[in-house]
Formats: sequence, structure tokens, C-alpha cells
Amino acid sequence: MQPFFTLEHSDKTSSARAGRVRTEHGEIETPIFMPVGTQGTVKAISPRDLETAGAQIILGNTYHLYLRPGDQLIRKAGGLHKFMSWPKPILTDSGGYQVFSLADLRDLSEEGVRFKSHFDGSRHLFTPEKVIEIERNLGTDIAMVLDECTPYPCSFEYAEKSHRMTLNWAQRCSTRFNENGPVHDYRQFLFGIVQGSTYPELRKLSAEGLMQIGFDGYAIGGLAVGEPKHQLYDMTAICTEILPQNQPRYLMGVGKPEDIVAAIGLGVDMFDCVIPTRNGRNGMVFTWNGKMKYKNSEFREDFRPIDENCGCYTCRNFSRAYLRHLFNTGETLVLFLASLHNIYFYLELVREAGKAILSDRFASWRKEFYERYEKNS
Amino acid sequence: MQPFFTLEHSDKTSSARAGRVRTEHGEIETPIFMPVGTQGTVKAISPRDLETAGAQIILGNTYHLYLRPGDQLIRKAGGLHKFMSWPKPILTDSGGYQVFSLADLRDLSEEGVRFKSHFDGSRHLFTPEKVIEIERNLGTDIAMVLDECTPYPCSFEYAEKSHRMTLNWAQRCSTRFNENGPVHDYRQFLFGIVQGSTYPELRKLSAEGLMQIGFDGYAIGGLAVGEPKHQLYDMTAICTEILPQNQPRYLMGVGKPEDIVAAIGLGVDMFDCVIPTRNGRNGMVFTWNGKMKYKNSEFREDFRPIDENCGCYTCRNFSRAYLRHLFNTGETLVLFLASLHNIYFYLELVREAGKAILSDRFASWRKEFYERYEKNS
Repeated sequence: MQPFFTLEHSDKTSSARAGRVRTEHGEIETPIFMPVGTQGTVKAISPRDLETAGAQIILGNTYHLYLRPGDQLIRKAGGLHKFMSWPKPILTDSGGYQVFSLADLRDLSEEGVRFKSHFDGSRHLFTPEKVIEIERNLGTDIAMVLDECTPYPCSFEYAEKSHRMTLNWAQRCSTRFNENGPVHDYRQFLFGIVQGSTYPELRKLSAEGLMQIGFDGYAIGGLAVGEPKHQLYDMTAICTEILPQNQPRYLMGVGKPEDIVAAIGLGVDMFDCVIPTRNGRNGMVFTWNGKMKYKNSEFREDFRPIDENCGCYTCRNFSRAYLRHLFNTGETLVLFLASLHNIYFYLELVREAGKAILSDRFASWRKEFYERYEKNS
Repeated sequence: MQPFFTLEHSDKTSSARAGRVRTEHGEIETPIFMPVGTQGTVKAISPRDLETAGAQIILGNTYHLYLRPGDQLIRKAGGLHKFMSWPKPILTDSGGYQVFSLADLRDLSEEGVRFKSHFDGSRHLFTPEKVIEIERNLGTDIAMVLDECTPYPCSFEYAEKSHRMTLNWAQRCSTRFNENGPVHDYRQFLFGIVQGSTYPELRKLSAEGLMQIGFDGYAIGGLAVGEPKHQLYDMTAICTEILPQNQPRYLMGVGKPEDIVAAIGLGVDMFDCVIPTRNGRNGMVFTWNGKMKYKNSEFREDFRPIDENCGCYTCRNFSRAYLRHLFNTGETLVLFLASLHNIYFYLELVREAGKAILSDRFASWRKEFYERYEKNS
């Protein structure tokens, strides 16, 4: 059997890596960006269009899917892939982040986290074991452990206590994950999550603790929550220096194109973020020449595509003026067209980064990217 | 040059007809249903998906496009086809219906109709000549004359006066249409609209008056506005008996599958209606076995497609349970999936009707359709 992850090349001009993740739903070339499909759909984009845009793996949110339509229903449907008609790999988060950001009346303890649903007020308890059972039912290729995502700023005392609880939860998740086989007829993989807020020593302890338990891959959590940019980069670098070379690293919830490029240079392999879809829906698109608010009046009679050189369906067929018109008139087609372009851009971005890594020119590629991208942003 | 319309076959078991409409953007096999693209997009469906669903011609709303983004802007874009990236034929209504149903403070006279925009209160005047100029700028293949769509019920006196004004407007539209050549580099065609409310003698006068002016095709307007079903059918039959055999007939705003089938049997060739897209967005889909409210709780764990035998993208990939989940969670993907299925169904419906006509079995096909469709509706 081939390994879950192969490190194919380490760039000679940076810490960037190119690799390959293997799941029973297909292979993933890293570095990779994972479009976010919170409620069993990447908002406004059909699975067919996601594939055409180059998506290799998507992310589902355990918290949302557990509440609606429920993990038992998805289990009956044959798993999340079948339910949403997405044949390629899926990663699910643990639901922890959403419990802390969306749910009401959280009650956090070693046992787990009690919360009230944000949409109907029903009461629930997520324990590490419960979350693994849910992710088993969903049948995703890569499951995440339950963790507490600390806010920013966060006192050292709180961060230390929290990271220790997260480590205990990770151990319980691993134990439960290894006790029971998969619910569906394919293998699943489990990632640990490094926490520790902005404290280097806690990040180190957290990463080492997870490595002692042993996971298929490691995520870096608790970042992109409001901390200064240098701390995002510093904490990421501290983690990637410690984490095993021959396993994938996933920087959760990051993010902006410039941060993804920076984190690839620090040795991160996997990314997810709602920015491309959310910003697309709100009137903004990404290009190699920077961001563009297509809803602005300056594009009223601009009949050029978002990006003349882009190969996405949107750019090959529609103008800025048309997108602006759809946005102005509240036509939902624009949610699809703008989201699709942004997903295509993000996937092209990581693909181009991968090519640069494979030819040992990531540092110069990164420099060129920033010069072009930030000039107009 | 081939004629604009060819009557290819008249069914021997009914008044149904199969024909062919030719425009510079392609041919249309009749009977045909035209999906409605009010604001330069069939709501939630990309042009590529419309084509895949079998759409041969779509309808645009002159009132909406005149207000936003404006016919001058669309003229600069190279016409509506290029603006919205729809390469096939387009028909535009005259805007009259929307002025009467949407705009505020209408002031109707022989000159035309003054109104305030329903979204920004700006004041405008539609004259017959103005409407032709707008439709020239939009560059649609088939333009409609300005008419007054009388409400139901409507007194004989009002209906008589209104239909005479509509006839005068039709003459002025025709004159302006023939005075000026097209703005874009392809030919346009002009349809008259029969009015006369529910009064057979007025319908007859209206149709004869229009035929005297002479149009490329004839629409039947002012129906499906609340009148009893027998009047919809009676008025349609009166018009199709009078209108020229060798020109297309278009029943405006109709409608439900059962009404379309009935009207095809009365000799109508073209239809448009927002029902398939609007109802799809509101939780309802059409099948050969009747209507289905996919949002209902009975479909919670129903993992079958809407229709096992349907060839649309939605039915080939997604379950009722999944559609219901998307609807319940407010995911916009369902707007696309449900609308696409309904458009596919409507187009399959008219295609099957056409086949039945070509083999002289429309009456029996119609009977089978009603038995199956109405049993469950």
C-alpha cells in the first residue's frame, strides 16, 4: 500500500514543499487549497463546476452537518460524498471552532463542550469521542480532532490550560478513532491540531504532545483570529519546524492569497478558507494583479473579463459590467460566477506555487507574486 | 433565404402544429417553451447549463433591462446576447406588462404610458416608438409591440377602448420598426399582440387588425391573469382559428404544464412563464407524475432523485433528501438545481409534444399526459 503522504520535493530556496496525499477518493497534490463546503455544498457551486475549477479536496463543517441534516441521515445516505455528489476527498473539521464562534451558552470542561444550536436553541454536547463518531458517520477522508480554538488576545495562563485540555482531547479522539473501524467501506485518516495561541513554548509543547500520540497529519489551529501578521507567520514557522517532514501540515482557516503564499514558504501543505466564496458573494474577486471590487461603479461599462488571462468559465464568458449588473440587481447567478472565479484563482495560485517548488524557484516566484499582487491591492 | 417560420406538420388528431422558427442566432423547433431571463439572466442558471437543458430561445424583459443596466449600455456591450453570453435566440417583451404590474403612478394615454420605476422612483415614458428603439438597442431576435394587458375582470367598454389603443400602438410600432434598420448586424422580427380580454368579438377584431398591419408572428396576450380556465382555452382557440397558419403563435405568460399542453392542442407554438424557475426556487419541482414539494418533511430521508427517469444534471446526481436539506439551510445551490430540473422538464414536455404531433398522435399523447400528471398533482 502506498503511504498516505509522500513528500515529493523540498524547495531549495525556501521551506516550501510539494507532496502528495492519497485517499480512497483520490490523490491530492500539495500545496493545496480546500474550498469550504459548510453545509454539504460549497456555496453556489455545483460539484461538477468545482471539479472543473480544479478542486481536489473540499472541507465540510461537522458542527453544521451534525445539526442539519444530521450525521445519522448522512450515514444513511452512504456518507457525505454520496449525499452531496462529490466523488473526491473531503476533510471535516471537528466542529470546535463553530461551537466557539456560533453557538450560544457554551459550557466548556474536560468532558467536552455543551452548547445550544445557533438556529433552533436545541442543547448538545460535543465530547472528543462524540465528534469522532460524527465524523465516522459523515465518512470523510480526513477527520480532525476536537480542539479549543483560543481567541486573540489570550492570556498565557488560559492558553496553557486550554492547550493541555486540547491535548487530552486529541488523545481521546485518537483512542476512539483507533478502537472502531470506519462506518463506510473506505479508510479514514485523523489529524491532530496544534494550539498554544501566540506563545512559542506552548506551540512547541502542543506539537510535541500531538506527535507523541501520533496522527496521520497535523493542523495548526488558533491562528488568523485577529493576531498581528508577524505572529501568524512566526507561530506557523515554529510549528512547521517541529512537525514531521513526512506528514502533511494544514494551516486552518488561512486565508488571504498573500498569507497562503507566505505559509507555503514556511512549509505548510494544506489550506482552507471561506474568503474566496464569501468575498465573491460580497462583490469582490481576486486576480494575479490584486483584488477587484467588481460591484464598483467604475466597472459599469467595462466589457473586459475580470482577468483576460484567466481560464475559468466566468472569465471566458462574462464581463465586469455584466457581473456588476447581476450584483446590482440581486441576481443569484453572480454568487456562482464570482465564487467560481475566486475558487479557480485560489487553486491556480497553489498549483503555480507547486510548480515553482518542483523547479526550486519558490523564493523568486513568491517575490514576483507579491510585486504584482500587492501593487494593485 | 429561408422563411422565418415553416409549418412542418399539422397533427391529424388536434389543432396542434410542429414548426420551425429561423433567426440569425439559430433555429427553434416549435412547440417551444422559452425560459424567462428577466434581468439578463434566467435566474440562477448559467447560459451553459440552459443550453445543456435544451433551451433554444429565452425571453428578456424590456422594462427591467431598460431600467437596469439600461438599453444603451447593452447596446454598447454589443447587444443582449453578448452581454449575457447567450448565443441562441432571444425574444423580448415590450415592457407593457411590467409597467402595469410593477411600476407606480402609471399614466396611460394614446401617446404611451408614463410610469415611475419600481425600484428608484425615477420617471419614464414608454411610447410605441420608444419601446421599438429599446428593443433595437437590446438587439433581440424577436421584439414585441407595446400593448396594454387588460386585467381580469374587465368591462366590455374598457376592453374595447384598450384593444383599439393597442392596435394603434401596434401600427406605430410596426411603422417605426420598418423605418429604421437594426442597430446590431443581424435581422430582427416583430410580433403583434392580440388583446380583447374575454370578449370573443374583440379578440377577433384585434387579431384581424394586427393581420392587416402585418407582423412576423402573433402573440395572444391578456390571458392567465386570473380568468377561469375555460376562458383561457376559449380565447386561445378563437385567436388561433383566425391567425395565419404560416406564422408562429405565442401565448404570453402561459404557464402551467397542463395549460401548455392544452394550448399546444389549440395550435399555439410558443410559450413563456416564470413558473418553472420561480416554483423551483420556492421548493417545488415538476415531474411527469405531477408536482412535488421537495421541501416537505416526507422527503427527509428520501435518497431517490426527483425523477428516476429524468436526464437532467440534478436528477442524475442529487437526491430529494439533499435538495430538501439545501432548501432548509438556505443554500443557494438549490435555486440552481431545482430551477434547472424544472426548465429541463418544461423543455422535455414541449419536445415530447412535438414528437407526438409529427407522428399524428397528439390527442392520445395528451390524454396519457393528463392521466399520469394529474393523478398525483
